[in-house]
Amino acid sequence: MVSPVTPSAGVLSPLGLDAVRLAPGFWGDRAALNHEVIIGHCLEWMEREGWIGNFRGERPRRGREFSDSEAYKLLEAMAWSGHPGLPELAATVAAAQEDDGYLNTRWSSERYSDLEWGHELYCYGHLIQAGVARLRAHGEDELTKVARRAADHLCDRFMETTETCGHPEVEMALVELYRATGTERYLEMARRLVERRGRPALGPIHLGRAYFQDDMPVRRARVLRGHAVRALYLACGAVDVAVETGDGDLLQAIEEQWENTVARRTHLTGGMGSRHSDEAFGEDFELPADRAYSETCAGIASIMLSHRLLLATGRARYADLAERTMYNVLATSPAPDGRSFFYANPLHMRIPPEPREGVVDHTSGAGLRSSWYDVSCCPNNIARTLASLPAYLAAADGDALHVHHYAPAEIRHRGLTLRLETDYPWSGTVTAHVVEGRPGRIVLRVPSWAEGATLTHGGTTRPAGPGHVTAEADWRPGDRIRLDLPMASRWTFPDRRVDAVRGCAAVERGPLVYCAESVADDPPLALVTALPEPPAERTRDGVVELEARACLVPAGDAPWPYRDGHPDTTGREVTLRLVPYHRWGNRGPSSMRVWLPLA
Amino acid sequence: MVSPVTPSAGVLSPLGLDAVRLAPGFWGDRAALNHEVIIGHCLEWMEREGWIGNFRGERPRRGREFSDSEAYKLLEAMAWSGHPGLPELAATVAAAQEDDGYLNTRWSSERYSDLEWGHELYCYGHLIQAGVARLRAHGEDELTKVARRAADHLCDRFMETTETCGHPEVEMALVELYRATGTERYLEMARRLVERRGRPALGPIHLGRAYFQDDMPVRRARVLRGHAVRALYLACGAVDVAVETGDGDLLQAIEEQWENTVARRTHLTGGMGSRHSDEAFGEDFELPADRAYSETCAGIASIMLSHRLLLATGRARYADLAERTMYNVLATSPAPDGRSFFYANPLHMRIPPEPREGVVDHTSGAGLRSSWYDVSCCPNNIARTLASLPAYLAAADGDALHVHHYAPAEIRHRGLTLRLETDYPWSGTVTAHVVEGRPGRIVLRVPSWAEGATLTHGGTTRPAGPGHVTAEADWRPGDRIRLDLPMASRWTFPDRRVDAVRGCAAVERGPLVYCAESVADDPPLALVTALPEPPAERTRDGVVELEARACLVPAGDAPWPYRDGHPDTTGREVTLRLVPYHRWGNRGPSSMRVWLPLA
Repeated sequence: MVSPVTPSAGVLSPLGLDAVRLAPGFWGDRAALNHEVIIGHCLEWMEREGWIGNFRGERPRRGREFSDSEAYKLLEAMAWSGHPGLPELAATVAAAQEDDGYLNTRWSSERYSDLEWGHELYCYGHLIQAGVARLRAHGEDELTKVARRAADHLCDRFMETTETCGHPEVEMALVELYRATGTERYLEMARRLVERRGRPALGPIHLGRAYFQDDMPVRRARVLRGHAVRALYLACGAVDVAVETGDGDLLQAIEEQWENTVARRTHLTGGMGSRHSDEAFGEDFELPADRAYSETCAGIASIMLSHRLLLATGRARYADLAERTMYNVLATSPAPDGRSFFYANPLHMRIPPEPREGVVDHTSGAGLRSSWYDVSCCPNNIARTLASLPAYLAAADGDALHVHHYAPAEIRHRGLTLRLETDYPWSGTVTAHVVEGRPGRIVLRVPSWAEGATLTHGGTTRPAGPGHVTAEADWRPGDRIRLDLPMASRWTFPDRRVDAVRGCAAVERGPLVYCAESVADDPPLALVTALPEPPAERTRDGVVELEARACLVPAGDAPWPYRDGHPDTTGREVTLRLVPYHRWGNRGPSSMRVWLPLA
Repeated sequence: MVSPVTPSAGVLSPLGLDAVRLAPGFWGDRAALNHEVIIGHCLEWMEREGWIGNFRGERPRRGREFSDSEAYKLLEAMAWSGHPGLPELAATVAAAQEDDGYLNTRWSSERYSDLEWGHELYCYGHLIQAGVARLRAHGEDELTKVARRAADHLCDRFMETTETCGHPEVEMALVELYRATGTERYLEMARRLVERRGRPALGPIHLGRAYFQDDMPVRRARVLRGHAVRALYLACGAVDVAVETGDGDLLQAIEEQWENTVARRTHLTGGMGSRHSDEAFGEDFELPADRAYSETCAGIASIMLSHRLLLATGRARYADLAERTMYNVLATSPAPDGRSFFYANPLHMRIPPEPREGVVDHTSGAGLRSSWYDVSCCPNNIARTLASLPAYLAAADGDALHVHHYAPAEIRHRGLTLRLETDYPWSGTVTAHVVEGRPGRIVLRVPSWAEGATLTHGGTTRPAGPGHVTAEADWRPGDRIRLDLPMASRWTFPDRRVDAVRGCAAVERGPLVYCAESVADDPPLALVTALPEPPAERTRDGVVELEARACLVPAGDAPWPYRDGHPDTTGREVTLRLVPYHRWGNRGPSSMRVWLPLA
């Protein structure tokens, strides 16, 4: 199975990359951009910054202590994407592996001397994922052998200890390697790494043990906490272990953590991680718009987690969050030309950021896509995710074919071939043409926002979802089913405990979150209040933009910003142009708001 | 003049510590606690942590690269306070000074190799301030000689270069040393350090040059930015240079920076610095309540700056902000027993923090006072500020005596002696008894919030202020003047651009900001909405507490915190107990809100 996640149990089974082919469209274009531009862009910058040279022994070593992992993420992207650069990069990596399987360009002479911060197992995790991708997409080769040797070394070294790595990642990689090879010790190693965490397994750090989820056993936690990417990767590994070992309690614990995190610690965009300091989840309802960190990698990790839970349980709710995050975090980060990326994805930019050249410090603010970062996990993570994106679109429950995400594509499953046609997310109409037929069920996801959706086939139209809708027939070539998802834009209000955006509302349309953006002569967003009435729609270059009525409130500057009366919220009426959030910043440095104060 | 700031020009002249004696009361008690407990507490912890041992050459050296400065801050406190521990600590420090005047326990073998982060000139600054304090309070001794040797070395080394230190501080220290000794090269060195900053004078750092105010020349900036303590210390030095060199443009630039910072970047408490990451000012109106950093030291630095501007210009507005910051930041940090301190001073605590023992990482959250921090500037800064507090109370304009802050105290100026009696800030009545008389003016500050204030003397009552009110007479012993400041509590609303607290209001009374605190069975603050009606007053143990009507809104937990309708803000009525913000956390770990969502 050519897929990044291939559980041996669970309600749904993945369809491989070989069974789902994206055609031009919202995601197909991005997948093509990835293959043609993004992967090469990443390779070029890593060469320039010396991160590849580290494997060749070039000195001084360059990059952060975890830079090896960036080459591995890119190898994974190349493997899924069938990129021709793989063999050369794989050979460079292979040459750096030591005889006993150890591989790390930073810590070789001080192996495992700093498990809290060293990232050695984290790097193995990405190496193993690259190896698994290669094994599935291509078959055994040098890269897969390097990955197995590293995994064997890891098991030899850590199976009987109580240690782990400060950055979870290797857990899910080991389960995947078990799935790909059948070697049970990889699963056992993963299981032990998941279970020993929080007993505690690591030394104290000044950020506190919750930062790397070593504050309590995984199955005892009730919500995701600490560093967002670490927390989400660990949860992915725990789901994988739970599914393969039949550990229902562990699965349930992660489901509960997901529920509480989504209910209280997730931005409207699906973005996770509220804090710049520690790149961490905040407390419940601590969801600032302006300082939302919402790291691109945390969004990707969240998609990975939701996808795993979807396969395990079949619940549409997981696909809902994955879709929200795909359209509003994953799609937001890369620029249309594939050569710059957002690291953080705030929901509010007060002033247009100043352009920055070269390698940008990943902590130094947000608001502009940069070509490369000192910590450049995000571009490589985007590359591997876009390269494996078809795997997220559909799945199977026996003969039944489930479609979770809508894009122009061809999907095959056991003699049934569907060609999906749609202009989603701009239009809500999705037509599935049967190209090759057999009897069976076709299950289509109906997003939670799509109240009033209908399914049309065989000459009848009926209500669909929310959740999913099933069409059953003896499918013949030429048959068609049509899903119509209502795409009227809607105003969304925050829970009153989300202090940061009290008195505000946001506009959504279909799976897209919209934002107001102020470039050049547009009204200054700090002084705009919106009237929550249905916005007008306007299509520009195939993109649906919205126009909302708003007021421009007089600044009323005062020497002290606290007064004895309610602040004004009304003023001269203006029109506020709203663009899909994933397109913000495309017109150059701008101020931006997802949450609009109400008049 | 025994005072921490003694400008040779400006509208007002300070009165020395020998001219103002605090009696028991809000500030007198704190000054006594400082002398009796806080200074000893700091000394004890610095011995325990090895920061004093560093001067004795104990190895390995302990503490951060700037830990020497902590000993100097404490020496300054001891000098103003007349603490008997000074000679021994001064001798320890003196023994570590090198022959050419260089003194630093961290960088001796790598002098000035990292001006961006080394803090060597910053440390000299505090050493020089300690020396100046000793010189003024006591006269020449070993400590004053050490300070002068360090200053001479500094001038030799840096007078003709274009370099400076990553952390401003030495600028104001050098001007003070010039004032105390008359040696003009100290002033010239300070002037050059102020002027060369931002040309730029330092190497690039990953946080960006604005972090240490090297992004533009001091006189070109329009608002304070970057690391809050650095920005405020630099502004203090610039004012001192401007006053001594008669540079009106520079003074005006700092006044403008102060105005813009107060209008857009200051919390209701007077706290400055919005961001945990970089301990920095945020953008205009970026003033989150929950993640307000509002470092204690930034509050102290702000008081220092406002005091300098008050002396230079006589504008009551500077005293207003100093008072706000004194009562709501300076008074908030130390526990009543003087043995633990807040480092950060947020305006909202979502959940009660977990108690922490021992040396606490200064970045690891807030909400509990700790005995000591890995970076422990705040306790020592409190010690030196409380030790010199009388200097902030009053000043003179020729014969006229100006009283800026109200506390039980005796104030002498050129044959006029006043005894102030007051229960301020609990009561708004301040009575000045003339103990020793002469003809002249007595000028009393009337805070901006005190609308309707009156002054009574000679049998008549008249409106007073805001700003200040003057009483002129041939004062005789037994004369009295009485200032009555209305102390009704008041609801305060934020400017609409302060996104973080939209839809909220806070309660103030006199100079005090109040907060709701939830301990044990109190209503959970996340679900409370307030009714902005006049709260009831209730005095407990001499402290005025308030009770406001409020609603407890049903939680209405949902799986996704964003919905299609306005959130509820009403529910069962409850009484909300409000305590002065400076007393929060005294009853143990609690959640807390200054800004209350409105029903």
